[in-house]
Amino acid sequence: MNLKERLREALLEDIGSGDVTSEALIPETDVSRGYFLAKEEGILCGVPFALEVFRLLDPNLEEEIILKEGDRLLPWTVFLRIKGKTRAILGGERVALNLLSHLSGIATRTNNFVRIIQGTKAKILDTRKTTPLWRDLEKYAVRTGGGQNHRMGLFDMALIKDNHIRAKGGIKEALKSARENLRPGVKVEIEVTNFEEFLEALEGNPDWIMLDNMPPSEIRKCVEKGKGKVILEASGGITEENIREIAETGVDYISLGALTHSVKALDISLELEEN
Amino acid sequence: MNLKERLREALLEDIGSGDVTSEALIPETDVSRGYFLAKEEGILCGVPFALEVFRLLDPNLEEEIILKEGDRLLPWTVFLRIKGKTRAILGGERVALNLLSHLSGIATRTNNFVRIIQGTKAKILDTRKTTPLWRDLEKYAVRTGGGQNHRMGLFDMALIKDNHIRAKGGIKEALKSARENLRPGVKVEIEVTNFEEFLEALEGNPDWIMLDNMPPSEIRKCVEKGKGKVILEASGGITEENIREIAETGVDYISLGALTHSVKALDISLELEEN
Amino acid sequence: MNLKERLREALLEDIGSGDVTSEALIPETDVSRGYFLAKEEGILCGVPFALEVFRLLDPNLEEEIILKEGDRLLPWTVFLRIKGKTRAILGGERVALNLLSHLSGIATRTNNFVRIIQGTKAKILDTRKTTPLWRDLEKYAVRTGGGQNHRMGLFDMALIKDNHIRAKGGIKEALKSARENLRPGVKVEIEVTNFEEFLEALEGNPDWIMLDNMPPSEIRKCVEKGKGKVILEASGGITEENIREIAETGVDYISLGALTHSVKALDISLELEEN
Amino acid sequence: MNLKERLREALLEDIGSGDVTSEALIPETDVSRGYFLAKEEGILCGVPFALEVFRLLDPNLEEEIILKEGDRLLPWTVFLRIKGKTRAILGGERVALNLLSHLSGIATRTNNFVRIIQGTKAKILDTRKTTPLWRDLEKYAVRTGGGQNHRMGLFDMALIKDNHIRAKGGIKEALKSARENLRPGVKVEIEVTNFEEFLEALEGNPDWIMLDNMPPSEIRKCVEKGKGKVILEASGGITEENIREIAETGVDYISLGALTHSVKALDISLELEEN
Amino acid sequence: MNLKERLREALLEDIGSGDVTSEALIPETDVSRGYFLAKEEGILCGVPFALEVFRLLDPNLEEEIILKEGDRLLPWTVFLRIKGKTRAILGGERVALNLLSHLSGIATRTNNFVRIIQGTKAKILDTRKTTPLWRDLEKYAVRTGGGQNHRMGLFDMALIKDNHIRAKGGIKEALKSARENLRPGVKVEIEVTNFEEFLEALEGNPDWIMLDNMPPSEIRKCVEKGKGKVILEASGGITEENIREIAETGVDYISLGALTHSVKALDISLELEEN
Amino acid sequence: MNLKERLREALLEDIGSGDVTSEALIPETDVSRGYFLAKEEGILCGVPFALEVFRLLDPNLEEEIILKEGDRLLPWTVFLRIKGKTRAILGGERVALNLLSHLSGIATRTNNFVRIIQGTKAKILDTRKTTPLWRDLEKYAVRTGGGQNHRMGLFDMALIKDNHIRAKGGIKEALKSARENLRPGVKVEIEVTNFEEFLEALEGNPDWIMLDNMPPSEIRKCVEKGKGKVILEASGGITEENIREIAETGVDYISLGALTHSVKALDISLELEEN
Repeated sequence: MNLKERLREALLEDIGSGDVTSEALIPETDVSRGYFLAKEEGILCGVPFALEVFRLLDPNLEEEIILKEGDRLLPWTVFLRIKGKTRAILGGERVALNLLSHLSGIATRTNNFVRIIQGTKAKILDTRKTTPLWRDLEKYAVRTGGGQNHRMGLFDMALIKDNHIRAKGGIKEALKSARENLRPGVKVEIEVTNFEEFLEALEGNPDWIMLDNMPPSEIRKCVEKGKGKVILEASGGITEENIREIAETGVDYISLGALTHSVKALDISLELEEN
Repeated sequence: MNLKERLREALLEDIGSGDVTSEALIPETDVSRGYFLAKEEGILCGVPFALEVFRLLDPNLEEEIILKEGDRLLPWTVFLRIKGKTRAILGGERVALNLLSHLSGIATRTNNFVRIIQGTKAKILDTRKTTPLWRDLEKYAVRTGGGQNHRMGLFDMALIKDNHIRAKGGIKEALKSARENLRPGVKVEIEVTNFEEFLEALEGNPDWIMLDNMPPSEIRKCVEKGKGKVILEASGGITEENIREIAETGVDYISLGALTHSVKALDISLELEEN
Repeated sequence: MNLKERLREALLEDIGSGDVTSEALIPETDVSRGYFLAKEEGILCGVPFALEVFRLLDPNLEEEIILKEGDRLLPWTVFLRIKGKTRAILGGERVALNLLSHLSGIATRTNNFVRIIQGTKAKILDTRKTTPLWRDLEKYAVRTGGGQNHRMGLFDMALIKDNHIRAKGGIKEALKSARENLRPGVKVEIEVTNFEEFLEALEGNPDWIMLDNMPPSEIRKCVEKGKGKVILEASGGITEENIREIAETGVDYISLGALTHSVKALDISLELEEN
Repeated sequence: MNLKERLREALLEDIGSGDVTSEALIPETDVSRGYFLAKEEGILCGVPFALEVFRLLDPNLEEEIILKEGDRLLPWTVFLRIKGKTRAILGGERVALNLLSHLSGIATRTNNFVRIIQGTKAKILDTRKTTPLWRDLEKYAVRTGGGQNHRMGLFDMALIKDNHIRAKGGIKEALKSARENLRPGVKVEIEVTNFEEFLEALEGNPDWIMLDNMPPSEIRKCVEKGKGKVILEASGGITEENIREIAETGVDYISLGALTHSVKALDISLELEEN
Repeated sequence: MNLKERLREALLEDIGSGDVTSEALIPETDVSRGYFLAKEEGILCGVPFALEVFRLLDPNLEEEIILKEGDRLLPWTVFLRIKGKTRAILGGERVALNLLSHLSGIATRTNNFVRIIQGTKAKILDTRKTTPLWRDLEKYAVRTGGGQNHRMGLFDMALIKDNHIRAKGGIKEALKSARENLRPGVKVEIEVTNFEEFLEALEGNPDWIMLDNMPPSEIRKCVEKGKGKVILEASGGITEENIREIAETGVDYISLGALTHSVKALDISLELEEN
Repeated sequence: MNLKERLREALLEDIGSGDVTSEALIPETDVSRGYFLAKEEGILCGVPFALEVFRLLDPNLEEEIILKEGDRLLPWTVFLRIKGKTRAILGGERVALNLLSHLSGIATRTNNFVRIIQGTKAKILDTRKTTPLWRDLEKYAVRTGGGQNHRMGLFDMALIKDNHIRAKGGIKEALKSARENLRPGVKVEIEVTNFEEFLEALEGNPDWIMLDNMPPSEIRKCVEKGKGKVILEASGGITEENIREIAETGVDYISLGALTHSVKALDISLELEEN
């Protein structure tokens, strides 16, 4: 389902058989101006999708873009103005705000982590712990906040986890089987939980190793051994408190599910102007 | 789009052209058992949808339901067991967990508020600040946590907000216009921000008045005046700290956007058993 | 399915793999003018949808709107002219006329009832006895003819009928259960068939009572008792002959399934002009 | 859109975000028996579709078919019994009844005409004046009532009307052009309005000629001339009063738009039984 | 599914979650010019669909049409130029080329047969042996190459084959049954495999007889007997070598499955110009 | 669009408003047995999809699978028997056969190449030159014939072609830009046309190099230089005549567009048995 179809379904979910309030109170031809206001600090994300929402209701909507995707918002910043049919603005308001505040929340959180590890070589990665049907927008929000994207789904990269390893009888066997059965175009990552597993994985020649829930000291040992031979990713139990120390071990990537699975919406509102 | 279609789209989003890892490592006929494990305390929500996800991939999946919707989870509780094709279990795992941990997060948060105001007559309500395309499930999670649902969307109740009032030139005019133009089956709520507006609204005979961001003392005045004549809802700026005091003013309902717009996912995992 | 999708499906139903006659006889670039002619008296309804049908086949279609929605048609009135690709006009003709003549038939019938009860306070309501997939347009046609809309579907209002009452063991119990289990935003109507049931229902404090198939004398008793406390609707067995008497009892609404379930199409044709 | 998809959309139209009454009053696991009752005389049509509607809501619905499609209904005949989840029965009731009463109305009307012309060689045909999105079912109802189907749409037969004739400059030219440009598998019908046009059409060797709005005497002349050489269809202005006389002219077919464009719904209801 | 929807699905199939190469290497606003080059001789077919593919990605794409549908291509002919967003051109390139080279392959093959039988009265027909979901375009390509279309599908003409004949107990019985049960608008073709069957079929008065896999001498006998009474089609085992001899027997049509089931793609490429 | 939806659309394309022949001649309850017969040598492919087609029309279809996917067919081999509703078998016949003969044609062609290069280390790869909407099945047919799959689309691997190189100003720059901008999980292939370009590409450290249209002698030089450092693929101008020589150069993969863009359908028919 492409983005336009999802936005249309989202409007249908909210508007259903009709916005009874506006149909009763606002003349069909009425036109209004409105502005979007951030009420707290953060990173702006989602403006193109918010505009698309309104355009599905009023193809002639006019906009004035004041701040652009990825810009830092200060409290009480007006970042976007629109003008269009009042009924379209009120009908799309909630869907547009729900998207904007959610995506800006992700970008803001990501950016926070990015700034904490600034100066190290590590990069912030997302995961597949995203809201169903909105992964593409959420991964876009991660990039907008300065992070990078891990694989898009199960289809574009192999990630061998404990269940796969157990099914094959070991790390070595799993990596061998992956090499034999995967299309040649697919990169292979494997998850390990300690230094011994790491060494065994390294011999199987994967493209990438995920160090799951390891303490910084053990991560450091893996980095010394694997740097340059394999991509190294730290994952699991990462917080604002410990991420800097982990980044300084020299890993290439640090991935965090919380970027997308536990989002605090950024407080944003839409105000209509007096005519 | 009905639920089944959305779950199918969610699987398509994650699996796309195929789960390359499992296709390479797990035989097509392989069967596994797995169990779902809550890693922190909370209220369980979403099991039927998680099962539906797996059934879309393996119609013959077997389940053993250990805890039911709305049950309290303690850390390290196993609440559900499944048995089915290994590829189906691994292919549906992420979508199922993303739903379960999100919905259980909502139910947990809601239930927390419900317990704080226990003993008062107030009830917890949700809002339209939900994740696009998942409002029905999120509102179900609110009910599972002990809350109640406000309107489902713009279609099933009128809510006259500041923009509508301004468009009509006042509270009285807006309520009059609503009465004249609405289908007779539609309830009318109006938003007011202080006691004066409340009195004006009360004269217009709405079914329901929302007291937006009022301090407890002012809410109490509205309750004294309006109790029995109109439904009263407190909204805006509600937190774990102040909700008890607000509930004790005697309002009928307290609504919170944060139930659904800023969800902390409950930590849940799926473990495959050794064969 | 939104209106545009339904109109597209309707064209697909008629045109299928192609309009073989026009493809064989009319050059692709040929342009024609045509006019719509009402052949009998009635209320015009459906022009925007007819135009949308043609625009799906020729986005550049031009129209001249002579009469507007709700206007009274006299026999042999031209109410709309169009100009566009001949193949588009002939390809959309039947779908457009089927919609126009059906919706105008509904508006005409509704308006007939509205005029019969003119001067009373009663209003004409429709029901859910509509053509599947076209309820929104049919309810629009009722409004165009001067009627009002009852609930849109099972989702936006509660209507407790005999089956619900029986399931709960009585009118009182059903109303009590409804109050406890319904979202606060939902209005409650209950159906009663005689004065005793009416009195019992009144005690349960519903928003609205439907008086099903009652004689005018009994309706009058209900009005005397209930006026001002509850909305009153007469329903069942209403005809052109008895509606005035029923309206004069003082009921608020009179609902008629026949507005939409037994429609006589208004005779409308499309004529192409000589070039 | 196949039938199942349309029935699902029809349920969505009626149920939307949920049947609030039944959800509040009927336990989810409640099971009921119900029977369908015809309240007036007619021809039964639509049972398979009504059952499909309920099965979309309760796949385990049981049915007892008492009368079959095309059977004559007497007033107060029970023709079908069902047993299933009460919520499914109440949720599908309106859509099922709307279909049944509409299709039975068509079959009844058709059968009425069929009986009037019984003993002549003429057969009753429908037209393309059908309800958008339901043509297949309506044409099925015509067959159920004893009529036959004219073309299904613009795709499966050529019908040259006045607009096509005018575009080509005459009957002869239109028929010539049709022969040259049509796929060889397509039958050609042409519409004529008097005997002179009929003779000109006959020379062009069409498969079929429609005699539009001709008086019986003129139809008879066409029959004498054309019988055996071409299919002959009378159309336009046909009523219960004049159809017998027209049928006795010897035409092969008589087509009536009113079979499907002005349907009087047959009065049918669904009654739940006391448990 | 209309053409636009299929083209959109085809793009989705190829682009999926994104064109990773172009997104990494080509700026979003980059614009390019490109030209389509035929690398071998053939008949051009598919340009409108190729353009539609690009327009789905860049609605403002500009094109310069150098050769038109059905024109003969010489090796190294440039037949179309486009200008638009580079990412849109690269993203649509493969789908557009796959369509163009396939359809031009069909038109070329068809035209080859048409030229071999030039001067005879026979015409080339296609069959239903087409690529699922693309029959309309493939039949269009047959017409573009100078052939004609047999029936579009199972819906618009009856073709009685051996299985139907066997089910009815003979050619005569099958034709009788067809006449009685078919809508009057449907043409009837029957398949026969030798002269005796042909004679039996002729008595049943079909519109059309298919002579399946008969040698030219036997076809000639059928032609002598049936010419003028029935449409005659030779089918089965037709090649470039024997088609002329078959055409000279006097049959009306020769049908070939290989036009569409075994297509050699025409070699076509898209070259971007240096800026 | 998942496979089931595409098969359903394919049936809709062929059956449309109904299979007029079978509806007229075959009773609805009639049951038949049939068998699939290969009329020429080849590799069997597509049986599961053919069966799915019939099951969409008759969910109770029974099958007897005689040969399995990838088995070698000899002329006049019966490889599958089915039993089900006669109308379902005749209604699905053409779609099923079109799929079977097309996919078996691809598997047969692929297998032919695989056997020619047997004993070398090279493997056969497909391309993106597939039939729109059927890429997954065509790539499956390539695997069934013993080949391997190149990338599934533009989304799961980067392939830097001449246009990308030109846009970046050179091979080195393009590879550098790819590394910086691609998600870490994406493999990078680059296309080169001669040994000099190959050396330049090698320095940029891609995962994979495509040697486009190079003579065997030059390919050999690339192999000597690159073996073990990079995956090597020969592409362009490959035929049955030269593929063995190219395989013997030591390249890892040889890719051929003709596997899927110019398919000769395998001759397969479905025969109904006498009852």
